[in-house]
Amino acid sequence: MTDFAWTRDQFLLPDGVIYLDGNSLGPMPKAAPDRVARVLQPEWRDMLIGGWVKAGWHMMPETLGDRIAALIGAEPGHVVVGDTLSIKVYQALAAALALRPERRVILSDTGNFPSDLYMAEGLARTLGHGTRLVTVAPEDVAEALTDEVAVLMLTEVDYRTGRRHDVAALTARAHEVSALTVWDLAHSFGAVPVDLAAANVDFAAGCTYKYINAGPGAPAFIYVAPRHAEKADTALQGWQGHDAPFAFDPAYRPASKVARMRVGTPPVLQLAALDAALDVWDQVDIHDVRARSIALSERFIAGVEETCPQLRLASPRDPERRGSQVSFHFEHGYAAMQALIARGVVGDFRAPDIMRFGLTPLYIGEAEVDRAVEILAEIMKDRLWDNPDYKVKAIVT
Amino acid sequence: MTDFAWTRDQFLLPDGVIYLDGNSLGPMPKAAPDRVARVLQPEWRDMLIGGWVKAGWHMMPETLGDRIAALIGAEPGHVVVGDTLSIKVYQALAAALALRPERRVILSDTGNFPSDLYMAEGLARTLGHGTRLVTVAPEDVAEALTDEVAVLMLTEVDYRTGRRHDVAALTARAHEVSALTVWDLAHSFGAVPVDLAAANVDFAAGCTYKYINAGPGAPAFIYVAPRHAEKADTALQGWQGHDAPFAFDPAYRPASKVARMRVGTPPVLQLAALDAALDVWDQVDIHDVRARSIALSERFIAGVEETCPQLRLASPRDPERRGSQVSFHFEHGYAAMQALIARGVVGDFRAPDIMRFGLTPLYIGEAEVDRAVEILAEIMKDRLWDNPDYKVKAIVT
Repeated sequence: MTDFAWTRDQFLLPDGVIYLDGNSLGPMPKAAPDRVARVLQPEWRDMLIGGWVKAGWHMMPETLGDRIAALIGAEPGHVVVGDTLSIKVYQALAAALALRPERRVILSDTGNFPSDLYMAEGLARTLGHGTRLVTVAPEDVAEALTDEVAVLMLTEVDYRTGRRHDVAALTARAHEVSALTVWDLAHSFGAVPVDLAAANVDFAAGCTYKYINAGPGAPAFIYVAPRHAEKADTALQGWQGHDAPFAFDPAYRPASKVARMRVGTPPVLQLAALDAALDVWDQVDIHDVRARSIALSERFIAGVEETCPQLRLASPRDPERRGSQVSFHFEHGYAAMQALIARGVVGDFRAPDIMRFGLTPLYIGEAEVDRAVEILAEIMKDRLWDNPDYKVKAIVT
Repeated sequence: MTDFAWTRDQFLLPDGVIYLDGNSLGPMPKAAPDRVARVLQPEWRDMLIGGWVKAGWHMMPETLGDRIAALIGAEPGHVVVGDTLSIKVYQALAAALALRPERRVILSDTGNFPSDLYMAEGLARTLGHGTRLVTVAPEDVAEALTDEVAVLMLTEVDYRTGRRHDVAALTARAHEVSALTVWDLAHSFGAVPVDLAAANVDFAAGCTYKYINAGPGAPAFIYVAPRHAEKADTALQGWQGHDAPFAFDPAYRPASKVARMRVGTPPVLQLAALDAALDVWDQVDIHDVRARSIALSERFIAGVEETCPQLRLASPRDPERRGSQVSFHFEHGYAAMQALIARGVVGDFRAPDIMRFGLTPLYIGEAEVDRAVEILAEIMKDRLWDNPDYKVKAIVT
């Protein structure tokens, strides 16, 4: 049983802040500063170039990949850490497309995170030969899976509404038409149980700066199913993915399994912060997190609907169809969110009218949820946005 | 005039070590630990998601890009930091190829760093239509520049031998046949004067963990000449390169100028270390560094040739044709380098027989060079490699 009093104590959060934006950037684990500092001193200072071996820097993308694999139902040796989520989605998509050379369609949905769509378009243009990205409404994905589709590329949990796809069912449906799947786990990893092997997923990628709390610019990860591991091609064949990177062979020969998805020199400071963040997850059962996330979300929705009738739920009402965030439509949502943040309740806003709140049980409980509802209700009563002198400042999140 | 006593004092180096491997990973600037720690506390801890704006994290790829631009003769606003060198080379190459759609050949040389060649091959395969990488010996590059060549992709300074190409002359020659140039500055930036605008270079990329001393896994940078800036396409079109990344527009619209070469969320801890490392360079004139590097290199070569006749110079003898490293062939080079490292003289080895020494004037002077020669001479006399019991341990550098 996960001890949420203990998990709460693993983070440093500023006084007076109710942080409902851990779905954008998680808070700082207490262990992170020392872990990062250690890479600088004594490691970098004293080992210099030797740190790559003596301090284990070189293998961190793989050792951390294995720690992540254990949290997402992936086979050991089939997850590697590095780069950014956009890059890892690109690699997964390129590898998947290469396994279906006779097909030309990448299917996605209009709710996918824009960067995934941009990267897919860039890859399709580079590949040419009629390769194209087709997007449909999220509810139409199953129907759009025809035998023209090479790859189904989806984000499990919608970044705006929290709407959640059924990974196993859509993967099975894709396989029925011999399409492959690329799942983006940005809003899944650390938010909902993920079981990639059980769902028969082909490729997946995710980030670690949201629910995992690995810090600003924390690296991404990629999963390649064992059945594709020795065949997976990638358009981005960097030296760190070579079978013998330090042989400096002029001919490229991909490393065995997922290590081939490494590209360049890994960002050791960021990897150290990720290492510290994962320590918390070693003590957590994601099913406990999920149960508590649902309880907190239901409590938050009930409170908001009772006290703030102007807000309209944008997330699915069925908790099974949501991730770990709750969103509301409100025409003055931007101004309302600014006012909330000014009073210490930090959520965020997504155009055109979505107020977004992340419910993250590792450090948020009933008291924070209730207080957030109270403050939101006061703001709705104040109606600051009716005052022509009220100015809102843009925030970039 | 650069004060090399001052620059030496900006680094923490372990006692008893003569570090001649700053061309692989530079040593830690004294300012780095505090700068990195600040990102964690108070920034991440207290600002949480707000750090992207309030602490300036979001703009660091561009503000640091401008600091780098000033050091490599690039126009402000035309360098951006991020990702790894392999990724930035890929983007530069993709953009350059898109500007020469009627041509199919990427020309490079056999001395180029393998990752650049691997990435080029991956891109050529993805592009198809006969796009191909052709490599020739470094001395044959000018002659191989025909009107079939779309892009000349070279690393200015050879990572093994230190042999240096003439950037301006080869760029002019490429332009004569209407080819574009992509220059990899991995062993140039911080080692030799670089003047991209004066040399009329089209695209360039480089890393910051070698001579710039920004730490393990420090990010790369990319330069796009102003004349290509508004036309430059890139295969890797991530959300951070969008003209309005936080509008979450489903349609991709590239940012103005080099900012379009941003891909995903930037690694803020690594960027902070880079920021600290660049502070040293603000007080340095690269022409002073170059003059001192040549003096130290000549002293080192003379010392080695006088006392270690078994070693044969692998670098060009003319200092104008070298970067800031000196390499020697020696059949027992691997064992000899291990013995040197065990005695505190840290260089590195590159197969099959190259002993490589970086001469980095910011923290290396005559005394270190003379002592390194002395120790090397002793090791050559000891001939450890003749002893069948002598074991060498592999180091990964």
